[in-house]
Amino acid sequence: MKKTAQKFMMLAIERAKQAIEKGQTPFGACIVKDEQVISCEHNTVWDTTDITAHAEINAIRKACIKLDTVDLSGCVIYSTCEPCPMCFAACHWARISKIVFGARIKDAKQAGFSELIVSNEEMKRLGESSVEIVAGFLSEENIELFKLWSQNSEKRAY
Amino acid sequence: MKKTAQKFMMLAIERAKQAIEKGQTPFGACIVKDEQVISCEHNTVWDTTDITAHAEINAIRKACIKLDTVDLSGCVIYSTCEPCPMCFAACHWARISKIVFGARIKDAKQAGFSELIVSNEEMKRLGESSVEIVAGFLSEENIELFKLWSQNSEKRAY
Repeated sequence: MKKTAQKFMMLAIERAKQAIEKGQTPFGACIVKDEQVISCEHNTVWDTTDITAHAEINAIRKACIKLDTVDLSGCVIYSTCEPCPMCFAACHWARISKIVFGARIKDAKQAGFSELIVSNEEMKRLGESSVEIVAGFLSEENIELFKLWSQNSEKRAY
Repeated sequence: MKKTAQKFMMLAIERAKQAIEKGQTPFGACIVKDEQVISCEHNTVWDTTDITAHAEINAIRKACIKLDTVDLSGCVIYSTCEPCPMCFAACHWARISKIVFGARIKDAKQAGFSELIVSNEEMKRLGESSVEIVAGFLSEENIELFKLWSQNSEKRAY
């Protein structure tokens, strides 16, 4: 992976840290096209009382508005955690070309989230998706986000 | 199924028909709790330039706001078409108790939508979800929606 990939993942990580500070959950996602950041969002489930407001969904919605299209072909999404099946399928619908993630769904489950444990590789295989997947990118820094979040006494999982 | 279930599915079908009239795609979803309609929405992907704005996602977002909680336990969702994996996982996150649907994901694929063909039963099994699933409810009326939509010369799939 190029150095720029590290830079974009670090932006997603910074966004996740902002989420933790704001009492949100520790997830961030950054969408990039032609080496330009299109959107970079964190999870806002508690802030907006919207169970679908995961970081990836928020980033996809914002990117659609910004690029004025529902077709995000050519975009890469950098996500601090492996997209859950909801977010993986949203990436599919948006025709995102590549998913790069850090922590695994099982790490989120272990942190207390009621995840459906279906990996991105399995979703890709079952759904015959052509999306490219890069797993475990900067995984140490990304798993660390759950530890940071767990230290907050007012943390709430869902 | 009770007669009220037919009534709720017919509301979802009516909403899907409104979507077709407005140039949207032919999907509707109705969320019910204690026999009361909480939300009833259609797909607004084209209207809002939001690839995540499926009928079920719209209905879940609205129900969360209306009930002021991200926990929709005890709710039933009536969907004109089998929820795609994005919408199935959203139902899981929202802790929706039962999913009742009409047409199948393969019917949507046949109509031109780039579906990930992973059935709700398979998602439930893989993710070890406890959601109850009722498939093929009023399937004839629901499959008919795709025919109605296909007659519109300005129809657009995604």
